Amino acid sequence: MTRADVPEPTYLVDPWCVREPELRIDRLAQSESVFTLSNGHLGLRGNLDEGEPNGLPGTYLNSLYEQRPLPHAEAAYGNPESSQTVINVTNGKLIRLLVDDEPFDVRYGRLHRHERVLDLRAGTLVREVEWTSPAGQKIRVTSTRLVSLTQRAIAAICYEVEVLDAPARVVAQSELVANEDLPDGGKDPRAAAVLAAPLASEEHVGSGGKQVLVHRTKVSGLRLAAGMAHEVAGPDPLKTEAESVPDIARFTVATRLEPGEKLRIVKYLAYGWSSQRSRPALHDQVVAALAAAEQTGWDDLLAEQREFLEEFWRGADVEVDGDAEIQQAVRFALFHILQAGARAERRMIPAKGLTGTGYDGHTFWDTETFVLPVLAHTYPDAARDALAWRHMTLPLARERAAQLGLTGAAFPWRTIRGQECSGYWPAGTAAFHINADIADAVLRYVDATDDVEFEREIGLELMVETARLWRCLGHHDVEGVFRIDGVTGPDEYTAVVDNNVYTNLMARRNLQEAASMAMRHPDLADLLGVTPEEAASWRDAAAAMLVPYDERIGVHPQSEGFTNHARWDFAGTKADHYPLLLNFPYFDLYRKQVVKQADLVLALHLCGEAFTAEQKARDFDYYEGLTVRDSSLSAQTQAVVAAEVGHLDLAHDYLAETALLDLHDLNHNTRDGLHIASMAGAWNGLVAGFGGMRAAEGRLRFAPRLPNGLSRLAFRLRYRGRRLKVTITAGSAVYDLREGNPIKLLHHGREITLADEPAELAIPPLDPRPAPSQPEGRAPTPRRVDPRHQDG
Amino acid sequence: MTRADVPEPTYLVDPWCVREPELRIDRLAQSESVFTLSNGHLGLRGNLDEGEPNGLPGTYLNSLYEQRPLPHAEAAYGNPESSQTVINVTNGKLIRLLVDDEPFDVRYGRLHRHERVLDLRAGTLVREVEWTSPAGQKIRVTSTRLVSLTQRAIAAICYEVEVLDAPARVVAQSELVANEDLPDGGKDPRAAAVLAAPLASEEHVGSGGKQVLVHRTKVSGLRLAAGMAHEVAGPDPLKTEAESVPDIARFTVATRLEPGEKLRIVKYLAYGWSSQRSRPALHDQVVAALAAAEQTGWDDLLAEQREFLEEFWRGADVEVDGDAEIQQAVRFALFHILQAGARAERRMIPAKGLTGTGYDGHTFWDTETFVLPVLAHTYPDAARDALAWRHMTLPLARERAAQLGLTGAAFPWRTIRGQECSGYWPAGTAAFHINADIADAVLRYVDATDDVEFEREIGLELMVETARLWRCLGHHDVEGVFRIDGVTGPDEYTAVVDNNVYTNLMARRNLQEAASMAMRHPDLADLLGVTPEEAASWRDAAAAMLVPYDERIGVHPQSEGFTNHARWDFAGTKADHYPLLLNFPYFDLYRKQVVKQADLVLALHLCGEAFTAEQKARDFDYYEGLTVRDSSLSAQTQAVVAAEVGHLDLAHDYLAETALLDLHDLNHNTRDGLHIASMAGAWNGLVAGFGGMRAAEGRLRFAPRLPNGLSRLAFRLRYRGRRLKVTITAGSAVYDLREGNPIKLLHHGREITLADEPAELAIPPLDPRPAPSQPEGRAPTPRRVDPRHQDG
Repeated sequence: MTRADVPEPTYLVDPWCVREPELRIDRLAQSESVFTLSNGHLGLRGNLDEGEPNGLPGTYLNSLYEQRPLPHAEAAYGNPESSQTVINVTNGKLIRLLVDDEPFDVRYGRLHRHERVLDLRAGTLVREVEWTSPAGQKIRVTSTRLVSLTQRAIAAICYEVEVLDAPARVVAQSELVANEDLPDGGKDPRAAAVLAAPLASEEHVGSGGKQVLVHRTKVSGLRLAAGMAHEVAGPDPLKTEAESVPDIARFTVATRLEPGEKLRIVKYLAYGWSSQRSRPALHDQVVAALAAAEQTGWDDLLAEQREFLEEFWRGADVEVDGDAEIQQAVRFALFHILQAGARAERRMIPAKGLTGTGYDGHTFWDTETFVLPVLAHTYPDAARDALAWRHMTLPLARERAAQLGLTGAAFPWRTIRGQECSGYWPAGTAAFHINADIADAVLRYVDATDDVEFEREIGLELMVETARLWRCLGHHDVEGVFRIDGVTGPDEYTAVVDNNVYTNLMARRNLQEAASMAMRHPDLADLLGVTPEEAASWRDAAAAMLVPYDERIGVHPQSEGFTNHARWDFAGTKADHYPLLLNFPYFDLYRKQVVKQADLVLALHLCGEAFTAEQKARDFDYYEGLTVRDSSLSAQTQAVVAAEVGHLDLAHDYLAETALLDLHDLNHNTRDGLHIASMAGAWNGLVAGFGGMRAAEGRLRFAPRLPNGLSRLAFRLRYRGRRLKVTITAGSAVYDLREGNPIKLLHHGREITLADEPAELAIPPLDPRPAPSQPEGRAPTPRRVDPRHQDG
Repeated sequence: MTRADVPEPTYLVDPWCVREPELRIDRLAQSESVFTLSNGHLGLRGNLDEGEPNGLPGTYLNSLYEQRPLPHAEAAYGNPESSQTVINVTNGKLIRLLVDDEPFDVRYGRLHRHERVLDLRAGTLVREVEWTSPAGQKIRVTSTRLVSLTQRAIAAICYEVEVLDAPARVVAQSELVANEDLPDGGKDPRAAAVLAAPLASEEHVGSGGKQVLVHRTKVSGLRLAAGMAHEVAGPDPLKTEAESVPDIARFTVATRLEPGEKLRIVKYLAYGWSSQRSRPALHDQVVAALAAAEQTGWDDLLAEQREFLEEFWRGADVEVDGDAEIQQAVRFALFHILQAGARAERRMIPAKGLTGTGYDGHTFWDTETFVLPVLAHTYPDAARDALAWRHMTLPLARERAAQLGLTGAAFPWRTIRGQECSGYWPAGTAAFHINADIADAVLRYVDATDDVEFEREIGLELMVETARLWRCLGHHDVEGVFRIDGVTGPDEYTAVVDNNVYTNLMARRNLQEAASMAMRHPDLADLLGVTPEEAASWRDAAAAMLVPYDERIGVHPQSEGFTNHARWDFAGTKADHYPLLLNFPYFDLYRKQVVKQADLVLALHLCGEAFTAEQKARDFDYYEGLTVRDSSLSAQTQAVVAAEVGHLDLAHDYLAETALLDLHDLNHNTRDGLHIASMAGAWNGLVAGFGGMRAAEGRLRFAPRLPNGLSRLAFRLRYRGRRLKVTITAGSAVYDLREGNPIKLLHHGREITLADEPAELAIPPLDPRPAPSQPEGRAPTPRRVDPRHQDG
C-alpha cells in the first residue's frame, strides 16, 4: 500500500517490525529518528555503528540540558532570559572498523546488503551488512543494539564481523566520544557557540575494556558520566588496547580472521548524570551499572527486554485488519511512546521523546493531553511518573505564577527542568490551558488506575494549585459571569483572546474537580490551606463559567468574537504557502478565521459532556472548513471527533495522517525527532475514535464504529487493575474482561456488566450525513480502501 | 514657584530664557538635553566646551544611523531582522583649555561662577564661568554657541578666555573627534559592539584653522564629513598649530594673557552626510559651507539667528499670565519644536528631536499626532517637510504592506529611514493607526495652509495609499458592519484587539477624506489608479464603520469587549510599581481595564464630531479612572479633553505635567533627550485645551475658558496665510486678525467674521460637574494656584 505523495516507502510494512531493506543515505536522518532506541532515561538515535555518514549524531539523557540565552528585540517584564536545550552527550554507540587498511564506510566500496530492523517485540535494532571494501575485501557485519527497559542506565551492542572470501586483518575501535561535531547549530551565533562543544572534561580513565569519561556542561553545570565495558570473542592472537584523552575513550581490538571466523564484541554502555553528585560518586555509579549489566550478560539482557515488552503488549496491543500500514504504525507508535516514558521516572516526557533535538528537547502540553491518556491505559506507571515530575516542579510553577502576578501554579509552556523557556509569550506563557491539561491528566490517570495514594500525594496538590490559578486568572463581570480574558487556546493561529471555549471548559473542570478532590481528602486539603470558602469560590466560578455561543450561525466561536472575524482567504492561498506561519505574519493569522490545529474541536473531544450531539456535528463541520492542520497535533483530534459525529471515512483519513507522520515523513521533519504526540494519535484515533472510548468517573464508555477501510479492530486496555480486550467488526463489538473484577461499561449508551464471559453487542446503524469540506487543498489524503474489506 | 516633588529647581523661571545659575554635575545629562541646540538637521547636546565631565556626549545628524541586529527569541515571519539607531557623530563642540599647566576642568580647582543661559529669542546657549585652577590661576571663560537656523550645515562657537588676577600661559585646543567613548551601550553585546565605534575614517586633512574629517558608518555605509574653521584674536605672540589623525583633528592656539587681556576664538563648524555622494564631494560640501559661514561672520550669524526667531515668535508666541513656569515652559517647548523641525527638510522629526539617543533616535506616530499640529499653525513649512519625508518613504511602506499581505502602504511604527524597526509587533507593527495619523496630519496641514500644491504632489498619494490599507485591513461582517480586527490602538496596555474606537474613527476619516480628495483631483487620482469603484468602496467602508458602544454602562469601550475586562487592581498596586510595564507582564496588562495613555480620550479630542457632549463627559470620566499615564504622551490629551468637558483645574494640572516634563525631569529620563511630543503638549494644552481650538474644513473653532490658575492666555497662530492673536481672560476672548484676509470663526458655537477690528466675545458660564477620580496615587500633581489670580 503506497501513498501518491510518497513515491517509495523507506520501510517495509510488517505487523511487528520496521524493516529498512536497503540503506537510504538521503533519508539517513529520518531513519535515525525512527530507529531510536530509548527507555525514557537514555536515548540513542539510530546512527550507524561506525558513526559516519550521519544525519544527526544523537545520544540523549532525559533532562540533561545546557542553558542558552534567549534574546529579545525589546525587553519586557516576565520574559525568560534564557532557555534550556537538550544536548548530544557522550556517544557510546561508536564501533569503528578497519578491514585491512580500509575503514568500513558505506559510502565507499560496495554495499551488497544493508538491512536494519527495529523489532517491536524484542526491543532491538538489528543491522546486517555485507560489504566489499574498495580493496576488494568482503565482510559481513551484524550488530544488535538495545537500550535496556529493565536496567535504566544501560545500553548494549553486540557487534559481529565475519570475513567472507579471504582472510583479513580486522581492527575494531569501540569508543566513547564527547563533543561530537554537529551539523549547523542555528542562526543565533551566541546560542550556536554554547552548543558547539557543551561538555567540559572532568575525568577520563579506565583500563582493559572498562573506561569512563566524566564531563560537565559548561553553563548549566550538570555532571555526566559515560562508561563502557566489553566482552570480546575472536580467534587468537587477539590484541586489545585501551586509551583515553579528555573527550575520547577508545578500546581497540585487533585480530586476523579467516573466512568463516568471527570477531564478536559485546559492548555495555552505562550513563549517569546529576546536578549534585560528585565526580567520584557519578563515576562509581556508572561502573556499578556496568558491573550489573555484565553480570546479567548479553543474552539475559535480550531476554529481559523481550519479557518486559511481552508484558506491555499484553495490556496494550492493538490489532487492525484492513489497513496494514495502520497496523504497523500503531504498534510502532505504542513502542515509541513506551520508550519515551517507561523509565523517565519523575522526569519529563519531551515532545520528541529522546529521539532528536527538535523543539530543543522541550516538553509541552501535548504530553499530558495526548500521550498520557495512552500511557494511563497501557503503561500507567509512566503516566504516574510524568505527573510526579510536574509535581516536583511545583515550586518553580508557583514562582512563575507569582512573577506573573498570579496565585497558584503557572506551569511552563515549554521546558526541560521546569523553568519557562518560551520566547514568544502570546503563543507561550499566555497558553495557560496547559495548567488545565495537567489537571485533566491527573483526573484521567486517577480514573484509569484508582490510585488513591497518587491522588493524595501528588494529584490533589496539582489540582489545588491549578484551580487557584484559574480562580485568579478569571473574574466575574458585572452580570456575574465568570470570564477568562486574554489567554491563548490550543490553536496557535489565534492568540491572547477572551473566553476561549476549550480553555474555559477545561478550567471549569479543573475548578470543579479540585473542589471535589479537596472534599475527598479534607485532611490534606487543610494542609494545603484550602478553606471551605476557597473551594466554594472554585465551584461558584465553575458554575458561572462563560461558554460563548454564536446564536446567529449556531456554532460555538473558538473564543469570544472569533466568528465575527474575516475568514482567511483559503482560495487565494497557494499550496506552497503552508504552513501559513512561515509565510504570513502572526498579526494577520490572529485576526482571521483560520485554525492551525483543533481547538474548539478538541473541546468537543475532551469536554464532550458540554455539547449536545447536534452541536458537536455543527461545530465540527464549521471548524473543518477553517482548519489547515499546520500543526501535527491536529489530525488525531479531528479523527476522534469525525468518528464521533459520523464521518467515519474522514476519520480514517485523519488517522492515517497522524499515524504515518513519521514512518512516511509527511512533514519532512522526522529528522529532528519523532512526533510522540502524533504517535499517540494513532492509538487515540483508533481507540477513542473508532472505539469511541471515553473514560471518566470510574466508567468506560464505548461507541464503536468502523470506517469502510477497516474490517476489524481489536485493542487491549488496562483499567483500574483490569485488562480488557475490545474487538470491533462492522456489525458488532465484543468486550472481553481478561483480568480483574467485573466492570460496568456503556456500549452506545447501553450499560452492561462485564464479568467472566465476553459480551457481544450489535452496533446501531448510522444516519449518514454529508461530509464537511476542508479549506482548499487542505483535505487529508483520502485513505485508499482495500476493496476486499469494503461494505456492500 | 517650586513643586513639592522637585526640591530644588535646576533652572530659573524666566519668560524668555532657561537659566542654570550654577552647575549641577548630578544633573549634567538632563541639562545637556535641555541645552541642546539644533536646527533639525544638526543637533549639539549642551555638553561643556571642554568635553568633560559629561552625561552623554552628543552630536547628531538627522537620519544618519547605524544598523544593528534585532534578535528574536523565536523567529516569525515579518519580524524586522535589524534596526536603525542614531549615532554620535564627529564632535565639533570641543574646545579644551590649558591654563599654565592645568587643564580647565570644573571638577578640579574652584568654581566661582558657572551660569548657562539658553536664550529663546537669540537662539544661543551662553556660558559664563569664573574658575580658579588648582594652581591658583583665576580665569573667566565665556562661550556662546549657536546652531544656525539660517545656514543648515553650520554651527558656531565664540569662545573667550580672560585671566583675572595674574598673567598666565593659555593654550586652547579646538577639536573634531570621532568615535568618542560613550557610557554603557546597553545589554545586547552585539548591538553594543556595533555602536561602540561606529565610524571608519576615510580622510583627515586640513591646514591652518580649517580641517576636515570624513568617515563612513561601518554597517549602514553612510558617509559624513565634519569641518571646522577658526578666527582667532588675542595678544601676540600667538602661536597656532593644526594636526590630525584619523579620528581627531586639532587646532591649537597658544598665547600668554595679562589680566584684562582676552583670547577669543570663533569656531565655525560644518557637517554634511550622504548615502551616495563621494568623499571629495562631501569634503568640498563642508568646506564650502564653512566658507559661507566665515563670509557671514559671527556677528551676522547671531543677527540672522535672532531675526529668524523673531519672525517665528511673531506667528507662534504664547503668553500665559498666572503661571510663570508654564509661561517659560511653553516658549521653551515651541523653541525646541522649532529646533526639531525647522531644517529637517524632508527628513523625519524624531521623538527626541536631535537632543539625545532615546528611542534609538526613531520617529513614531507622535510626531504626526502631537507635533505637526503645532508646526502647522506656527511654522507650517516644517510640517510640510515632515510629511514630504513620509511621502518619500512610500515605496518602503508599500513594500512593508505587501510583506504583511496588505495593499496600500503600511508605515513603520518606528524608524529612522523608513524601514520598520519595531521588535515587538503587538505594540509595533500592529499599531496600524499610525497610517491614519499620517493621513490626519496631511488633512490638518492642508486645512491650516490651503496648500494645494502639497495636496496634489504629496497629500493625495498619502491619503490614497493609507485608505487602501484600511480598506484591506478591515472587512464587512455578515451584518454588513465594517470591522477592523486584531490591531493595537494608542494605549500600549491593550494590544491586538478588535475595533479600537480611536483606530476605527481615524480610519473612517482617512477613507472618507481620501475619497473626497481623489474627487477633487480626478486627474491625479486616475494616475494613482483610483477608480470610482475604489473610491466608492472607501466611502462605503467608512459609512459602515463599527464604533462599539457599551449600552449597559453608557460609555464607549476603548475596543470591543474592553469594558467586560477586569479592572486593574489599582488599590493593590504599590506606587513604586509604576510604570506598570516594568513590573507586570504584558499579558496581565492587556487583559485588564488599565490604560497607559489616552486612547479613547484621544478619539474624543481628535474625532470629537463622533461624540455628543454628554458622551464626551461620561467617557472622559470613565477613562480617568483607568488611565495611569505611564506614557508621556497622555497628559496633554487629558488636559485638552478635561478642558473641553469642563474640568478646567484638572486640565491645568495635566498641562503642567506635560509642559514641565523635561524642565523638571519628571520622568527621570530627560538625560536621554527631550520629549518633543510632550513639549507639543504645552501648546496643545493651552491652545486646544483652554483655547478650545479645533481646526477643520477651513474653519477655526474656539471654545476658550481659563482655569482658576490662569488670569490671561494669549496665543498667536498662522492659518491659511493669516496671522491671528487670541487673547483670553476669565470673562471674554479677544480675536485679532494681525495679517491676512477676513476669516469666519466660531466662538463657543457662535460664528463671527473677523476682519480689521479685533472682536471681543463673552465666555459663557460653565455648569460645574464633579471632578472625576484617577487610579489610586495616579492623580496629577495639583497645580498650586497663585492666590493673586484666584477668582473670588
